[in-house]
Amino acid sequence: MAAPSPGYSITARVSTPATFTATSDVTNAIAATGAQITAVDVVESSHAGLTIDVSCNTRDRAHGDEIRAAVDALDGVTVGNISDRTFLMHLGGKLETTARVPLRNRDDLSRAYTPGVARVCQAIAKNKADARNLTIKKNTVAVVTDGTAVLGLGDIGPEAAMPVMEGKAVLFKQFAGVDAWPVALDTKDTEEIIAICKAIAPAYGGINLEDISAPRCFEIEARLREELDIPVFHDDQHGTAIVTQAALVNALKVVDKKIEDIRIVVSGVGAAGTAIIKLLQASGAKHITAAGRSGVIERGSEHADAHRNWLAQNTNEEGFSGTLKEAVVGADVFIGVSAPNLLDASDIEKMNDGAIVFAMSNPDPEVSPEAAAKHAAVVATGRSDFPNQINNVLAFPGFFRGLLDAGASDIVDEMLVVAAEAIASCVSDEERNPSFIIPSVFDPEVSTRVAEAVAKVARDQGVATL
Amino acid sequence: MAAPSPGYSITARVSTPATFTATSDVTNAIAATGAQITAVDVVESSHAGLTIDVSCNTRDRAHGDEIRAAVDALDGVTVGNISDRTFLMHLGGKLETTARVPLRNRDDLSRAYTPGVARVCQAIAKNKADARNLTIKKNTVAVVTDGTAVLGLGDIGPEAAMPVMEGKAVLFKQFAGVDAWPVALDTKDTEEIIAICKAIAPAYGGINLEDISAPRCFEIEARLREELDIPVFHDDQHGTAIVTQAALVNALKVVDKKIEDIRIVVSGVGAAGTAIIKLLQASGAKHITAAGRSGVIERGSEHADAHRNWLAQNTNEEGFSGTLKEAVVGADVFIGVSAPNLLDASDIEKMNDGAIVFAMSNPDPEVSPEAAAKHAAVVATGRSDFPNQINNVLAFPGFFRGLLDAGASDIVDEMLVVAAEAIASCVSDEERNPSFIIPSVFDPEVSTRVAEAVAKVARDQGVATL
Repeated sequence: MAAPSPGYSITARVSTPATFTATSDVTNAIAATGAQITAVDVVESSHAGLTIDVSCNTRDRAHGDEIRAAVDALDGVTVGNISDRTFLMHLGGKLETTARVPLRNRDDLSRAYTPGVARVCQAIAKNKADARNLTIKKNTVAVVTDGTAVLGLGDIGPEAAMPVMEGKAVLFKQFAGVDAWPVALDTKDTEEIIAICKAIAPAYGGINLEDISAPRCFEIEARLREELDIPVFHDDQHGTAIVTQAALVNALKVVDKKIEDIRIVVSGVGAAGTAIIKLLQASGAKHITAAGRSGVIERGSEHADAHRNWLAQNTNEEGFSGTLKEAVVGADVFIGVSAPNLLDASDIEKMNDGAIVFAMSNPDPEVSPEAAAKHAAVVATGRSDFPNQINNVLAFPGFFRGLLDAGASDIVDEMLVVAAEAIASCVSDEERNPSFIIPSVFDPEVSTRVAEAVAKVARDQGVATL
Repeated sequence: MAAPSPGYSITARVSTPATFTATSDVTNAIAATGAQITAVDVVESSHAGLTIDVSCNTRDRAHGDEIRAAVDALDGVTVGNISDRTFLMHLGGKLETTARVPLRNRDDLSRAYTPGVARVCQAIAKNKADARNLTIKKNTVAVVTDGTAVLGLGDIGPEAAMPVMEGKAVLFKQFAGVDAWPVALDTKDTEEIIAICKAIAPAYGGINLEDISAPRCFEIEARLREELDIPVFHDDQHGTAIVTQAALVNALKVVDKKIEDIRIVVSGVGAAGTAIIKLLQASGAKHITAAGRSGVIERGSEHADAHRNWLAQNTNEEGFSGTLKEAVVGADVFIGVSAPNLLDASDIEKMNDGAIVFAMSNPDPEVSPEAAAKHAAVVATGRSDFPNQINNVLAFPGFFRGLLDAGASDIVDEMLVVAAEAIASCVSDEERNPSFIIPSVFDPEVSTRVAEAVAKVARDQGVATL
């Protein structure tokens, strides 16, 4: 049974008699269903009775019904409205636009709008590069999706993708002061998505592609990188790769191994898996095998899509052939971005001493973290309820902060390497241990260090405009 | 010579000796160039001298150089940096995104983002209409341009159009609490603009088309109105028409005439002129002639574009043929949305008694307002330095507020009529006079009344979803 989660937090309004034990009777009944009570507030009190709001974390929607039945069964107690705090938080959306300039009077209006604004327009018309100083392009990123690969939910469409994109925009602002705007497109046509991104680009200093299904995401990203003069980041590829690499840097310190010596098995050959492998190699890894649904990708094999062919040419130089389970025998590192429950404790036992396991399939990892921890030296997942959460929020805000600060026109591979190192550096030698290889998402140092490292590479490699 | 304007406001940093008259010598020298001094601030003072910031409104960029020379010529005085307050205001853009939800801790993150957000996504995937409650669609409008007809500047491109679109977004928020987002497109292709608007529509509760050149703007608007389930407003057409009609309602009360009796001449047959004529007719006007560059459009004449053909079939029922100057003889109302200096005082003199003149070409009207006022009973312009400014800011914020409040799926003609009446109603019988036929843009009552009137029509006519 799932554990109660704040993602399923509800507030139940309950009317009770005015007896001494009424409130505790209610909270006891709720706690007995397995809910975690987080707050009790008295809304109204009279001689006749009390109205209280009980907030609690539940397992799922059915758990709410269970709570209603349990409380209703108490003598003289009735449950009114049960509100879902996650839905309440989403009413009206999570993002708004705010003026950065005052409009108190006619003079303000004359400068921010007509007639004064005309001069600013003319200055930009004369020199387009001024748009990076005189418009929101300086600090604004488009978060573009077509809603085809949202979270683990698949192709749910652009409307349903919006809460994720809005959430992403909120994270951009909160963690790095970047203004991000959700662009959820009602088309799945690769060429149309490319054309739209190019058409909207004048307003933006960068594009963050998000939750677009493979293999279209590869072509969209590659084409836009080539055809646009603003950086294009695909979070499912680059964000995931950066954070995974950051975790690996510290995990290798824990087990005292070097990246060039280790054998790595990556499970998952989609957008994330391919990007992780590229960054591992750029960071010095030499021995990588990649496994898809039908086993390890063999050296030199031929495939229907370009990224699998790339993997066949650039991984598994030892010519291994076999299943994922066979591939992990003797491996130093397992990295999963694939599907639940592909491995068990006995597979992890067969890995090399000081094994590192990153089982990032969400919400159900490739191997149970508890089982993996029996044999591996370091275990990480994508979940917040285990140690070592590998979370993209550590990467994308600071990464774009750095790109915008430098007015970068492109992303170069070196930026991903230094971003991973910057994240890893936020765990000090004193702090580092098998359960703390990656900093907290609330560590304010992370985005600052990532931004500085990325901006420096932009300037060093000649892609900075500011 | 142009008058000094806050749109050309500058601040000059000046070092002076520590004499008693130093500051007044500087301000006198600046005032003598014709600048309006708005503030003097002492930045630093010592025994040796003073550093002061003098802010003033100037005529144009050359006027700033003139001021520098005049002040530099003073004994012991030097001018440092002269900063342009309009450009300073635009640094980094005029708009930002702000979170509507807190992200203080892991629990907040679990609700606003993963894992809690997945349930909200699923709810919308099951019922798309929920997007109007659970995403920014509820309160957000796209301000779409291709940068081809920006202010009086023409085709300056999407980057240079951004300061106007950002300004528009700021006005939307300030005057009606509407979140608006600038979408400046790097394409002039009609079909591509239509396709992009349709693709981005899931995130928005409405689309405001802006500064797109005619005749493309007509087709884009017509097609989008037909093919989208959110309202599409073209400010250059509908906004201008509403505010013009609002001004006419009150002007007719001043001269005590009825709209169905009067003869109206409209100069300008582009987007604005055509929309004004349609709204005049929907409001009861019966005698309208329209004049383009080659004279009055004749009844039944054939033209290259659809909107001129519409005018030939729907105006000038008396079969008048001739020039604009001939057409205004005996007319009750002149409405200009065309070009500077087409008429002079003698033309206005030949209009009917109690003539109404709306000369809205900007910045130079169709007829000098001072000259028109010698013979007309009521004169209005598009400028803020004469009485009766006909300004779209009075219309679009409240109009969209009403559309969003009702969750309107479409705009119906009746909405334009009631919006004009709502604006007109903000000038009370006691306030109304020839110099006050239209409320101030800072009158907070305007957008509220417009919004209520528009939302009511949406509900009455079955286009409301909320």
